[in-house]
Amino acid sequence: MELALELAALGEGNVNPNPMVGSVVVKAGKIIGRGYHKKYGGPHAEVFALDEAGVEASGATIYVTLEPCSHHGKTPPCAEKIIKMGIKRCVIAALDPNPLVAGKGVKLLEDAGIEVKINVLKDAALKQNIVFFKYIEEKIPYLFLKCAITLDGKIATKSGDSKWISNEKSRARVQELRHKYMGIMVGINTLLGDNPRLNARIEGGNNPHRIVVDPGLKTPEDYNFIQNNSDNKSIIITSKGNIHSEKHVKFEKNYKVKFIFLDGNRFLMEDILKEIGKSGIDSILLEGGNSMISMAFKEKALDGGEIFIAPKITGDNGAIPFISGFNIGTMKESIELKDVKFKVYGDNVAVEFNL
Amino acid sequence: MELALELAALGEGNVNPNPMVGSVVVKAGKIIGRGYHKKYGGPHAEVFALDEAGVEASGATIYVTLEPCSHHGKTPPCAEKIIKMGIKRCVIAALDPNPLVAGKGVKLLEDAGIEVKINVLKDAALKQNIVFFKYIEEKIPYLFLKCAITLDGKIATKSGDSKWISNEKSRARVQELRHKYMGIMVGINTLLGDNPRLNARIEGGNNPHRIVVDPGLKTPEDYNFIQNNSDNKSIIITSKGNIHSEKHVKFEKNYKVKFIFLDGNRFLMEDILKEIGKSGIDSILLEGGNSMISMAFKEKALDGGEIFIAPKITGDNGAIPFISGFNIGTMKESIELKDVKFKVYGDNVAVEFNL
Repeated sequence: MELALELAALGEGNVNPNPMVGSVVVKAGKIIGRGYHKKYGGPHAEVFALDEAGVEASGATIYVTLEPCSHHGKTPPCAEKIIKMGIKRCVIAALDPNPLVAGKGVKLLEDAGIEVKINVLKDAALKQNIVFFKYIEEKIPYLFLKCAITLDGKIATKSGDSKWISNEKSRARVQELRHKYMGIMVGINTLLGDNPRLNARIEGGNNPHRIVVDPGLKTPEDYNFIQNNSDNKSIIITSKGNIHSEKHVKFEKNYKVKFIFLDGNRFLMEDILKEIGKSGIDSILLEGGNSMISMAFKEKALDGGEIFIAPKITGDNGAIPFISGFNIGTMKESIELKDVKFKVYGDNVAVEFNL
Repeated sequence: MELALELAALGEGNVNPNPMVGSVVVKAGKIIGRGYHKKYGGPHAEVFALDEAGVEASGATIYVTLEPCSHHGKTPPCAEKIIKMGIKRCVIAALDPNPLVAGKGVKLLEDAGIEVKINVLKDAALKQNIVFFKYIEEKIPYLFLKCAITLDGKIATKSGDSKWISNEKSRARVQELRHKYMGIMVGINTLLGDNPRLNARIEGGNNPHRIVVDPGLKTPEDYNFIQNNSDNKSIIITSKGNIHSEKHVKFEKNYKVKFIFLDGNRFLMEDILKEIGKSGIDSILLEGGNSMISMAFKEKALDGGEIFIAPKITGDNGAIPFISGFNIGTMKESIELKDVKFKVYGDNVAVEFNL
C-alpha cells in the first residue's frame, strides 16, 4: 500500500479535480502490476496495474489507495474490471467520499466473492487526497496560502516594492505549488502592483487557473493577466455592476477571459470560493496580498499554507503587512497555526501549517 | 586541536571577560593531558593539561587554542610552565589579541628552543572567542539580540501582553543564552511591562549582570530588578539629571544597585555600550523591547542575534512590532541578516544571524 501511495503521488497536479490514486497487483509475494491515475479523464490506476499484470492477475491481490469505482463515468467501472480479471483479494486504503461511488465498489467486489479489506493506511490516503475529499464533500475549493514575508511580517514596502523578499529556492518551490493547485488567486492590488504571470514555470508543469478578485474591474488590458490567456484560464471575479461594461465585453470577446459576478463591491471569501467551486476548480493557491490574506484568516477560510520568511527587516511601520485588521487584547487571542512544519530553503525558512 | 576546542567550550559562560581556552598534551600519539580554562581568575588550560601529563610532558607536544600567556597576571605565565615542563613542540590555534601578550608567548617559547606552529584551526578558534576578541580590541561589549516574535513580527499586543509568544523549548534556550553572556539588557518599557527576573534559570548557570536603560529612573522599588539583587548585579543606566535623586540614593544604599549616568534623556546605544564596557562586561544579551532593538539596528550596534518565531499571528496593526522607525522605499533598502542559520524548537523556529 505504501508503494501504491507513492505511485498515486506521481499524478499530483495532473488529475484535479479527480483524486490521485495508485494501485499495485501482487501475486505470490511478487509485484506483477503497477499503476496510477496519470491525467484527469484518463484511465484509472487499477486499469494500468491490471493491464500490466495481464492473465497473471487471476488469483492475485490488488492494492488500491481509493475504493475502486462502480459507476460508468468517464471510464468503465474499475470494480468490474477487477472481477473480470479474476482478482482474489482487494485491499483498499480509503473509501470513496463521492456519494455516487461510496461503498458500492466494495459491495460489487464482495458480491463477486472477492475478499475485501478496507482502511489500510487510511490516514495517509486521506491526507494525500485532502483536496479531493474537501471538494467532494463541500463543493468548496481547498484554500492554501502562499506568501513571502520579511522577519517583521511585511510583504512590500510602502511604495509597493516586493522584489524580491524570498530567495530563488523559495521561488522555485512556489512554482511547484502553482502546479499542484488547480487555481491561483490574487487581489487586484497585487495584480496592479506586480503584473504577475501566475503560471507554473516548471518542466511539464500545469498552469493553474488564474483568478483575480477585482470588484471595480480595474485590471488593465495590457497586463499579463489579459494578454497571456491563450489557455483561456484567466478568471475575473467582479461586481455585478460591471456586467456589460466596456471592459467586460472586450475582455470576454477579444481575450476569452471568464467572468464571475458577485453582488456588491466588497466580497466575502466564502462567496468567492463557492462560485469558484461551481467552475470545477477544487483547489486554490492564494498568493496575496494583504486584503485577500486578511479576509481569508478573518473568515477562517484557509485550509493550510506555506509562509516563506526571509532574513530581511524593513523596520518600517508604513510597509505593508501580510495581514491586518484584527484587534486583540492578549496574546492568547492571536491566531495559532497548527501542525507546523519548517522547511529550510537556503537562507529562507518556510512555515507549513494547517488551520 | 579539535579536542582542545571542544574542551575550551566547556568554559562557556564561566570565564568572561577572559577567553575560553582548551589544551591537550600528546606524546607518542597518546593523549596524556587535557585542560580548559574553567573559571574567571582560575588556572589556565595549559596548567591543567600539563599537570595531568606530569613528568611525561617532557618531550611531548602541547596543543592550545590560544597563545600561551607570557605575563604575570592573575596566574603565573603559562609559557614559562611549558618551558619548565620540557615540552618539545607547541601548536597554537590563534595568537592572543591582547597587546600585553600578543606574540610574546611565541617568542618566549621559541627562545627556549621549542618548535612553535601557529594558526592551526585559527578560524574556529577566533569564532569560539568572538566575544573576547571584540572586547579586547574595542573595549565595547559584544551585543547579541534575543527576541521572540509572532509571524507578523510583533513582540506584544497593544496592551503590552507578551505571555507567551514563544514555546517552552525556546524559553529554555533563552536561559542558556543568559548563562552565556555576561550581561542582559532591557529597556524601561520591557521592565515595567514584564517585571522580569532576568536570571539564568539553568542548573549551574551564572546569572548575568542585569542592565536596564531607564533615562527617567522609572524603575519601581518593588520590582524584581531592585528586590532580587543579592548578587549586586543590577545596573541602572539613567540620565545625569537623576544623580542624587531620592531613588538613586535609596536604590544604591538600600539595594546596592549600581548606576551608570549619561547625558541627556535619549541615549545612543554606542554610549551605553562604551560605559558598560568600562565595567568589565564583555558581552550583552539584548532582550528588547521595541525601542532598544530599533536603536541597536539603527546604530548598527548588534554583532548577532537569535530571533525566535512562533506560529502565531496577531493581525493587529496596533500590536507592538519588534522593530520600527525605519523608512524604506524599496525592498533592497531593508536590513539583511547575514550567516543565517535556523534552529527548530518544537513549533518555533529560531533565526540565528550575524550582522
